[in-house]
Order: sequence, then C-alpha cells, then structure tokens
Amino acid sequence: MKAFSKTEVNKYLHLKLKDWLSDGECISRNFKFDNFVNAFSFMTMIALEAEKMGHHPDWSNVYNTVTIKLNTHDANGITQLDFDLAKYIDNCFQIFM
Amino acid sequence: MKAFSKTEVNKYLHLKLKDWLSDGECISRNFKFDNFVNAFSFMTMIALEAEKMGHHPDWSNVYNTVTIKLNTHDANGITQLDFDLAKYIDNCFQIFM
Amino acid sequence: MKAFSKTEVNKYLHLKLKDWLSDGECISRNFKFDNFVNAFSFMTMIALEAEKMGHHPDWSNVYNTVTIKLNTHDANGITQLDFDLAKYIDNCFQIFM
Amino acid sequence: MKAFSKTEVNKYLHLKLKDWLSDGECISRNFKFDNFVNAFSFMTMIALEAEKMGHHPDWSNVYNTVTIKLNTHDANGITQLDFDLAKYIDNCFQIFM
Repeated sequence: MKAFSKTEVNKYLHLKLKDWLSDGECISRNFKFDNFVNAFSFMTMIALEAEKMGHHPDWSNVYNTVTIKLNTHDANGITQLDFDLAKYIDNCFQIFM
Repeated sequence: MKAFSKTEVNKYLHLKLKDWLSDGECISRNFKFDNFVNAFSFMTMIALEAEKMGHHPDWSNVYNTVTIKLNTHDANGITQLDFDLAKYIDNCFQIFM
Repeated sequence: MKAFSKTEVNKYLHLKLKDWLSDGECISRNFKFDNFVNAFSFMTMIALEAEKMGHHPDWSNVYNTVTIKLNTHDANGITQLDFDLAKYIDNCFQIFM
Repeated sequence: MKAFSKTEVNKYLHLKLKDWLSDGECISRNFKFDNFVNAFSFMTMIALEAEKMGHHPDWSNVYNTVTIKLNTHDANGITQLDFDLAKYIDNCFQIFM
C-alpha cells in the first residue's frame, strides 16, 4: 500500500475527514465524551474494527478523552487504510454525540 | 435489600421501565442493534457499571441481539438494585438508537 | 461451508475439543472464572476474534460463568468455522487458568 | 488523600512495585503482550477496576504494547490510590505472562 504525499493527505482531510489533523507522519484527532464509560466503549468499537482490518491505532486515553493517531507502519506514511479507519472512527463517534 | 412484591414490580415497570417484562422472578428486556460491534460495546458499558455496583446481569448475546435478565440473588427476588441497573441499561441503549 | 455429520462432529470433539459437548445442532462449553472481570475480559478476547472471522457465538454470562454455543447458521449445522472458533476459545481460556 | 514525597514513592516502588518507575509526578510502567487481543483484554480488565475505584489511568496503546501512567489529580501527586491500582494492574499482567 502506497503512502500519500502531504498534499494528497491534506486534500483528503479537507474533503472527507474535516476533524482530523496531519503532521505529515500521521493523522490525528481528539475525542471528548461524557464520562469514562462512553470513552472506553468507543475504544471497544474501534478495537473490534482495528483487529478485523489488521490495522491498529496509536491511541491514548485519560478519563473522558481519547486521542487517536493513525499511520501505516509498513508504508512509512499515511495510506488509504488510515483514511478508512478514520472514517469508521468518525462514524462511531457520531453515536456518542 | 428487600425484594418487591409482584404488584410493586409491575407498578414500577409500568411507571419507569416500560420496555421491561417481569415473570415474578426477574425483569428482562431484549435489545437489538445494527451489528455485533454496537451490541458488544453496549455490553461493555453495562459491564463497567455492573462491576462498579457489584450487581451483575444474567445476559446473553447472539450477533446483534442482547437479552438481559436482572434479579437480586441475595434477596431471592427483584430489588431496587435491579431497577437502578435497568434504568442505567435503558440510558445506554438510548445512545445506540 | 458444509455441515459435518453427527459422527464427524463427535469424532472431532473427542480428538481435538475434549471439553466441548454436541447436541447435534451446536457445540457448547461452560467456563468458570475467578470473578466477573476475568469472565468479561475473556469475552472481549472472543469478541475480537469473532468479529474478525465474521462468525459470532451464541453466549451467555452470569457473574463468573460463561456458556458458549457455536453453530453455523448458513450451513444449518456445525462446520469447520465452529471448530476453529472453539479452538481459539480454548486457547483464550488457558490464559486464565 | 495525601500525596507521598519522592522519597516515600521511591521506597514504596522499591519494596512493592519493582517494575514501576517514578518521575516525581506519576508512576509508570510499560507492558508488552503477544498480540493486540491480549493487550486490549488487559486494558478491559483495568477499565473495569478503574471505573469501580473512580480512579482512571493515563494510558496509551500501540498494537501489543500498553503504557500506563498513574497519578492522583486531586492530590497533585502520587497517592495510595495509585499504588493500589498499580498492584491490581501487576496482578492482571501476571495472567498474560
């Protein structure tokens, strides 16, 4: 799987993943929930998809916040896998809003 | 904790837990989700609360359905603990609707 | 995927899944844990694999016990998918023993 | 709850939490697992206890690794709550070794 250029990544985020940021190496987004229970259940949703995709996030959690960073290690950059997982994550987050 | 009479249980369900049924020994409700991921994340929400309460459900899951039965073993019947957990469960389910 | 005959199922269980029972329609096993936390974490392990396989258990939990039934709906019987998931489940259970 | 001094923290870690490090502000430990499934199930075990304690970790996960930092926000330092959760976490980790 081929890594996208910085321009391609920024264009994609602008069009389809408006809440995600890119530092050129990964794409990331912060999420805030009502409480820890919702935050961890959101993480469970993502864990189930990530394991299915064989593509896992770099993520952290403190109480009601979750920070997710995505990149594709094998491609040494950001690929369609990351965009697909980010879109899935956005859809999960909608459930809690 | 004291078990409620059948009449008390039915009155409470009618007033505050309209989607729950009682067979006199436990209260129960079926839940249906879009998919397994949502069903299992809902279960995770409940697991986190049940462990905190020290009051655990008798529940089953097949793909996108979850069936939950609640009673209070120590009281040999249905108590306020069951009503409280049922209300929590209803609130969690709202998130997925 | 083709369903196995009763004889084939019983032979397979005898050789490779000694703790599982068959009623001809599904294979099943009961699991007991030290507490609810271990039981639910075991369920989380299985949920992650089941979703990946696209093959989900019919399971129930009460506190520290988990009962799992497996069959293949599309084949109207027990298939290699069930044997594979049962083996995975046994391996997960080993972790908690 | 009172925060411990750096000396007290170091002494406690030396005696009872040998695999944890302290930077004076929090105590931390890295964990490595066979795979993502085990890492996330370990996290589920901790989530269930943390929610019960009302004391949540600052943690991150990448595939088969989990990094956990503990401190007590309200006490602006490290308290007995952190030591208790760290001991629980160590016990959970034992299950996967």
